[in-house]
Amino acid sequence: MATTREEKRADLKRRLIEAAEAQILEKGLAGLKAREVTAQAGCALGALYNAFEDLDMLVLHVNSRTLARLGAALHAARRDGADAATELQALARAYVDFACDNQRLWSALFEHRLPDGVTMPDWHRDDHAVLIAEIIAPLGALRPDLDPEALRLRAQTTFAAVHGVVQLSLQGRFVGVPQECLVDEVAALVATMTRGSRSDSDPAGA
Amino acid sequence: MATTREEKRADLKRRLIEAAEAQILEKGLAGLKAREVTAQAGCALGALYNAFEDLDMLVLHVNSRTLARLGAALHAARRDGADAATELQALARAYVDFACDNQRLWSALFEHRLPDGVTMPDWHRDDHAVLIAEIIAPLGALRPDLDPEALRLRAQTTFAAVHGVVQLSLQGRFVGVPQECLVDEVAALVATMTRGSRSDSDPAGA
Repeated sequence: MATTREEKRADLKRRLIEAAEAQILEKGLAGLKAREVTAQAGCALGALYNAFEDLDMLVLHVNSRTLARLGAALHAARRDGADAATELQALARAYVDFACDNQRLWSALFEHRLPDGVTMPDWHRDDHAVLIAEIIAPLGALRPDLDPEALRLRAQTTFAAVHGVVQLSLQGRFVGVPQECLVDEVAALVATMTRGSRSDSDPAGA
Repeated sequence: MATTREEKRADLKRRLIEAAEAQILEKGLAGLKAREVTAQAGCALGALYNAFEDLDMLVLHVNSRTLARLGAALHAARRDGADAATELQALARAYVDFACDNQRLWSALFEHRLPDGVTMPDWHRDDHAVLIAEIIAPLGALRPDLDPEALRLRAQTTFAAVHGVVQLSLQGRFVGVPQECLVDEVAALVATMTRGSRSDSDPAGA
């Protein structure tokens, strides 16, 4: 009967992840309550802590699912054979679209903080690689002067720049650009960064 | 005795703001508790709600103080007479330094969210203007083709790009650049954006 017990446990975990995802979709991460998750999953409160250690670990599983979907969206946006500028524009647009279409799940990726002293498990940390994976090749084409480590760092910076514009806009912060301008402003930023990167690697001008 | 009553009320407000600021400095915004603020300010719990409506409004007063200090730091970083690239680098560096030196108070500016349905008061909203005020002139020198509204929008985008790199790095997010690389990466981003902006306004190349 070992298999059945394992299957039941996997099924419970799946139901808890789906319930937590549904709750975040409905109320945002700040509104997530363990009791409401277990009620929706149809299990006792204690079952959550048995299956996932605590609510934070359950959120990490939801976030890993979101990262996988975001990674697939970014991968699908690649324009193989296109020039770097076209590739980077397509990736940035896919990021904006994903954030707008999945705002609460996307926000949870960046709002969630583990308690002080708790280290992020490697399996979840590694799932973040999708955020920059697709940027590296087109950025490398613009900046052949950068070694792999510097290129990776610059890809992180490029991601963070676009992310900052999206986040301040979608949060409705005073300083954020109005949401109806977001697509155009991100496109303008990426165009500026692309042209600037070309001249960074060739100070004489492109 | 009206003056004395007004003075007492102003003194209480000041003590509450200072206590809340000290608590955020010590524990971060997420650790802020009304009871600990009033204990430190030496007043009853109810006095907070009498003076500030609620804890959220008290946080806005702390955030307005932080914005005023940040605005002063950015203003002091201006390099009048320098070229736009030098000005923008100095502003970005001042922003990075302020965020690093005042991490919890700075984070509170972007972490704090009013409850659903509560509108940010105008006095606090207007205090955010310092975040982009100093960017407009040097950016306008790079982009004389933009009208005032488009220039303001592009200043917001430029701020958000730098802010995104700082925020993901200081939060220690996987995708953020390591903090020891932050100054250099922000400088590289600003250099790239500056060069790209020059060629945006002059497609033939600078």
